[in-house]
Amino acid sequence: MSETAVTAGRPIGVAVLGMGNVGAEVVRILTENAADIQARVGAPVVLRGVAVRDLSKTRPGIDPALLTADPATLIARKDVDLVVELIGGIDPPRALILEALETGKSVITANKALMAAHAGELSQAAGANAVDLYFEAAVAGAIPVIRPLTQSLAGDSVNRVAGIVNGTTNYILSEMAETGADYDEVLAEAGRLGYAEADPTADVEGYDAAAKAAILASIAFHTRVTADDVYREGISAITPADLEAAAKFDCTIKLLAICERLTDDGTQRISARVYPALIPLEHPLATVNGAFNAVVVESENAGRLMFYGQGAGGAPTAAAVMGDLVMAARNRVFRGRGPLESTYASLPIATIDDVQTRYYVSLKVADRPGVLAQIAGEFAKNGVSIAAMRQEGAGDEARLIIVTHRASDQAQSETVAALEELDAVTKVSSVLRLEGTND
Amino acid sequence: MSETAVTAGRPIGVAVLGMGNVGAEVVRILTENAADIQARVGAPVVLRGVAVRDLSKTRPGIDPALLTADPATLIARKDVDLVVELIGGIDPPRALILEALETGKSVITANKALMAAHAGELSQAAGANAVDLYFEAAVAGAIPVIRPLTQSLAGDSVNRVAGIVNGTTNYILSEMAETGADYDEVLAEAGRLGYAEADPTADVEGYDAAAKAAILASIAFHTRVTADDVYREGISAITPADLEAAAKFDCTIKLLAICERLTDDGTQRISARVYPALIPLEHPLATVNGAFNAVVVESENAGRLMFYGQGAGGAPTAAAVMGDLVMAARNRVFRGRGPLESTYASLPIATIDDVQTRYYVSLKVADRPGVLAQIAGEFAKNGVSIAAMRQEGAGDEARLIIVTHRASDQAQSETVAALEELDAVTKVSSVLRLEGTND
Repeated sequence: MSETAVTAGRPIGVAVLGMGNVGAEVVRILTENAADIQARVGAPVVLRGVAVRDLSKTRPGIDPALLTADPATLIARKDVDLVVELIGGIDPPRALILEALETGKSVITANKALMAAHAGELSQAAGANAVDLYFEAAVAGAIPVIRPLTQSLAGDSVNRVAGIVNGTTNYILSEMAETGADYDEVLAEAGRLGYAEADPTADVEGYDAAAKAAILASIAFHTRVTADDVYREGISAITPADLEAAAKFDCTIKLLAICERLTDDGTQRISARVYPALIPLEHPLATVNGAFNAVVVESENAGRLMFYGQGAGGAPTAAAVMGDLVMAARNRVFRGRGPLESTYASLPIATIDDVQTRYYVSLKVADRPGVLAQIAGEFAKNGVSIAAMRQEGAGDEARLIIVTHRASDQAQSETVAALEELDAVTKVSSVLRLEGTND
Repeated sequence: MSETAVTAGRPIGVAVLGMGNVGAEVVRILTENAADIQARVGAPVVLRGVAVRDLSKTRPGIDPALLTADPATLIARKDVDLVVELIGGIDPPRALILEALETGKSVITANKALMAAHAGELSQAAGANAVDLYFEAAVAGAIPVIRPLTQSLAGDSVNRVAGIVNGTTNYILSEMAETGADYDEVLAEAGRLGYAEADPTADVEGYDAAAKAAILASIAFHTRVTADDVYREGISAITPADLEAAAKFDCTIKLLAICERLTDDGTQRISARVYPALIPLEHPLATVNGAFNAVVVESENAGRLMFYGQGAGGAPTAAAVMGDLVMAARNRVFRGRGPLESTYASLPIATIDDVQTRYYVSLKVADRPGVLAQIAGEFAKNGVSIAAMRQEGAGDEARLIIVTHRASDQAQSETVAALEELDAVTKVSSVLRLEGTND
């Protein structure tokens, strides 16, 4: 940097908590890029220690003297300025991060569950101690999303953030769409390839995406949104038949995290929700396949922006951590501070009942005259307008696919309940939402 | 913000220089979003005045008392903390910005020509006076690119930045590809629609993109790169026949700005270049159409990232200015400072002769036996390997399209010179590069 660093020379000490995939990559980059990092920060950035659970494990690429099983003592060291938390989960990270912030250390974390639950408490501690709390790596891996939302769009008004923010589910849905294989088969394959964890619940049931949606909604709308505020459905009920039917409507199915400012009735409310939805093939998120992530932001003046890249993995996630780390280190040298939680808007949170979307409904039906009219009648009775209808197969295999115009969750639920009562309807196979169209 | 602002309460004064499309939008947003901006900054942000060239012009939406024809006096006001420069061009902005920086004001500019020529001088003045110099709006309009490169990727090593950063040329090439109309026709239409200026030279000859390439290369590689260092070709020679031929090779043609770290011979050099190139239809930049911009960044650990959005226009560009403005205002309140020019790497700049690319060559040829062998022979003599060859038309209309493997600019130039000497070659119609393939 061409500027003169105020305290150039004094090294910035770093403690890393946790040495899984991401932690190992952070340690590697910190070592390999030391000269570049020093030039960019204006002072050397030095690894003081790494807290691990199992000291006996062999860890190539790191001096064993740097390892400790006691994170609290590492954090407390006078020569530690920055703490990088990569343990994951709520406890013990929550207490460790609070301890770090309260003793004047800046914190960088990739912990989405923690940020989605306790951002308020942690941010308050950071503010009270005039230190940084950065968490770019908590959402969408390597893709810069937090900094663009909190800084680049700081003068604008965001209306909507919609993204594919979970690589496991996106890999599964992409594979199902491409191969026609069913959910269980592809999930098993994803596990073998390391794209799904032994217990895949957090990913496939949308908990991971919901935590990210809470973080995105909080920063986009300057309102505290926690994971509990996020409506959530997973992908385990999606069938190859749904993907086939979607394709016939020129759509594909993606697990979306949607954060939206609702202004329908003149008052503003925030909706944050995660569910699998049909999106048109020409939508920018439709071509985001495999383990990739993408986030589309719609903002009052900037218009529509898209951010695309690798949403997971050791090196990509470490790259996001390192960006935060260099900026936090630089703030130590130049006495700056990044933005913290901003909740001044405090908008009310909408429930799923406040959200109107289009629907896709797949029914097994009796193949006889009058059935179609009867089914259409049930939609009409509940005020749900049908946009398209298509019959697949015949006889015992007859299926009816219906795509509706916008309707409330309640109107759709009542329609489905009524359809289930009809003799002509053997089964309501699927009810999914349709997003990303203008009507 | 939940933190306590150090000097919360004292208003931050803003001077805007220039009130064209972008200036008018900045003034509007500053007024309309005043409450949100105050909450995000931690202090009120107040417009102190707008410098315009023509005081007699009617300007709706602004208090005439705020207008002045004397930018220097406006900048010098004690209650001005931030100066937003939207005049454009090198002079007078250069002197005005220097004056602002040297008197302790932070500067936000959208001026790509100035930043591509004088970033060093301006950044030094900002550093010496401990103020900010932000220029997100100078590249790719609303799309956050500068902040992601300088901050989000601050801990990583960027290898390549390739983008569509000029909306005028992208509109023209998209329209030519879609309609088959020729260059002059589409340029005239672009002028009527307001997508091209009365004198379109800066856009169509690639000067605008070259300035942006210089800025991107500087920040990506921590090396001073000016517009003069950028190799540049425009789009005025592109024909409908080129776009048709490109389509037959499953490609389209885009004006690309490419900034690349060359490491071929063991030493590192920086290449920055702008030219129209064929790219495969499945490349992420191939589907960026009309006035949209997109930038693809390839980074050591983050991998491939893409940023997409509106690259021009009053409101989108103003959104980028406003993000910088809010961050600069916040830095006043919290005593922070953003990164400035970083040139510690000071890598040598490569010439176009150092760059190997694939080529597309279109020839008008005599339609007789032996011609193909003769032409292929000239490529072989110069060590240029042919990847694909295709004959179009017959008789007097016979054309030969050749796509090569990687070759140097010199080998390609010598091949073309030799082809021009052949009786069998009536004309070398086009020579274009092919980018975005792995071989």
